Amino acid sequence: MNDRLLKALRRQPVDCTPIWIMRQAGRYLPEYRATRARAGDFLTLCKTPELACEVTLQPLRRFDLDAAILFSDILTIPDAFGLGWSIDEGMGPKFARPLRNKSDVERLPEIDVDAQLGYVMQAMRLTRAALANKTPLIGFSGSPWTLATYMVEGGGSKEYKYAKGMMHDQPEVARKLLRKITVAVVDYLKAQVAAGAQALMIFDTWGGVLTTPDYGDFSLDYMAQIVAALKADATAADIPITLFTKGGGHWLEKIADSGCDAIGLDWTMPLRAARRRVGHRVALQGNMDPTVLYASSDKVEQEAKRVLDDFGDGDGHIFNLGHGIHPTIDPDRVATLVDAVHRHSRRD
Amino acid sequence: MNDRLLKALRRQPVDCTPIWIMRQAGRYLPEYRATRARAGDFLTLCKTPELACEVTLQPLRRFDLDAAILFSDILTIPDAFGLGWSIDEGMGPKFARPLRNKSDVERLPEIDVDAQLGYVMQAMRLTRAALANKTPLIGFSGSPWTLATYMVEGGGSKEYKYAKGMMHDQPEVARKLLRKITVAVVDYLKAQVAAGAQALMIFDTWGGVLTTPDYGDFSLDYMAQIVAALKADATAADIPITLFTKGGGHWLEKIADSGCDAIGLDWTMPLRAARRRVGHRVALQGNMDPTVLYASSDKVEQEAKRVLDDFGDGDGHIFNLGHGIHPTIDPDRVATLVDAVHRHSRRD
Repeated sequence: MNDRLLKALRRQPVDCTPIWIMRQAGRYLPEYRATRARAGDFLTLCKTPELACEVTLQPLRRFDLDAAILFSDILTIPDAFGLGWSIDEGMGPKFARPLRNKSDVERLPEIDVDAQLGYVMQAMRLTRAALANKTPLIGFSGSPWTLATYMVEGGGSKEYKYAKGMMHDQPEVARKLLRKITVAVVDYLKAQVAAGAQALMIFDTWGGVLTTPDYGDFSLDYMAQIVAALKADATAADIPITLFTKGGGHWLEKIADSGCDAIGLDWTMPLRAARRRVGHRVALQGNMDPTVLYASSDKVEQEAKRVLDDFGDGDGHIFNLGHGIHPTIDPDRVATLVDAVHRHSRRD
Repeated sequence: MNDRLLKALRRQPVDCTPIWIMRQAGRYLPEYRATRARAGDFLTLCKTPELACEVTLQPLRRFDLDAAILFSDILTIPDAFGLGWSIDEGMGPKFARPLRNKSDVERLPEIDVDAQLGYVMQAMRLTRAALANKTPLIGFSGSPWTLATYMVEGGGSKEYKYAKGMMHDQPEVARKLLRKITVAVVDYLKAQVAAGAQALMIFDTWGGVLTTPDYGDFSLDYMAQIVAALKADATAADIPITLFTKGGGHWLEKIADSGCDAIGLDWTMPLRAARRRVGHRVALQGNMDPTVLYASSDKVEQEAKRVLDDFGDGDGHIFNLGHGIHPTIDPDRVATLVDAVHRHSRRD
């Protein structure tokens, strides 16, 4: 098996820096768009294991990527909570029944992960089998805070009026919601491991909109609980966990203290400074600006090299973009990037 | 005159921490909405000195604020460059003639600030006279990079495909554009000082979407040139300048090196850590999360106190939000905030 990813996550030596790309199974690939068209819509694509498996594998057929990440969405959990998930084309995700007050939160049922999210585990099993131990498979979840923002706002947000409003004015209600989500995320990630996930990632897309104390209390605390629960689980204990808080560069030391194995970084945080701050405690994943892929191949190669040099020598770097790949990127640029990362990081 | 702001910007002792609020003259005030309705639209409000003066003064009639900031918009400069500014209600600003290539940039005319932006200076003079030396008046501009993003994209953006594309693939074209904008901003800020501005602020709203090297090369460098030009100008030399890069917390040391007098901080950057990093070289402005104003008065007061405590004892703090006030905030919360900041920071 290509074990560069798993070795790098454990800060062990590798022959060259592993690379995978957030949203590597996505709209920039014509074959993805074809499969999605066949599915009819995004939710059907997510919920049909054969199709989710197919799009997970697509980028690996084109590029020499060092990991597969299951095609899914962080909003499968809010959906399982019964909030009425839909996608408003061009406007993003919507929930028909957002949670706005204490009784909404108290009424929230427990999720039976295997029953309600079985389609994810089925896709995981199919994909793991199809990968035939050649490439490791990553599972993931949204962070409790990030999922809570969608569940309280009823969709995406710029201001987080309702989610932050709940946090500020009814912190106990917000904490109750975050605890309920945390329980679900732990069950979900354990089930993903049981179904074949070999590494896990928690996407805290909206932790970076919080102040330092609020980030600790309302986002990181719950991610740390998830990490602790997984590390205490016989089956999941050895599975490396990456935490990614977009805009979380101010809090790297605290994130490293959570017990996670790796920290994902967006492109605004210099890798060298990040490494100085966290030392060898965790691996670092990232962090090329995704917009560089709009540029020429020469620029892509030059920037890949700059990011590698910014990390410097030593173990524990997983190359990635600092955020998901944009839908209008030319796939040829991804080929250039993957090749450049492997070539320029080759250990002699 | 209430000189708390000017003293704090110079890191001199004050009787209590000064406060003003980004977008304090804005849609959350019913009297602003009435004046804007009278103007007919936003651009007319910006371009009619008597109305711009009126809305600048409105928040000072309600709240014990320590500064006025001229009501205007950062997009007056792209407008003066002839790009065809309009506001698409609900969608934000638009430019009819975005700059996409070398010849677009080369064709860009020089701005005659007094002729083309005379309405801003006229509003400044009217406002300064109306303030009768009771409260200091702040002038401002967008940063070259931030203005360039609007001028190249043709409006707001999430991905900066065209602006970053130009930066990556045609860096010399991007630099030529940034130099042209820099010349205009220097002229504009000098003219604002001549018209009565007693402090200046440069809003680098989109510097935080850049990598560390790109931030230095394409945003901070040009802001530093502006600071140097103003500090070398007989009339403007003593006017304190605040640089505000939203999401710029990683680069505080470099921003302080620009020669600015103060750094504006968004709410994600802890004031205490910021102060430790920049020492006494610059004052710090900020940084309460604007969404706290959606919460109860008690929470607003508690959070104001937390932000003051985070800065700690000593001189050189100007209280502000970490970003502009949202349009649906209850003005009573602003009254609570201003009072709380003054009360809790009172030096005995």
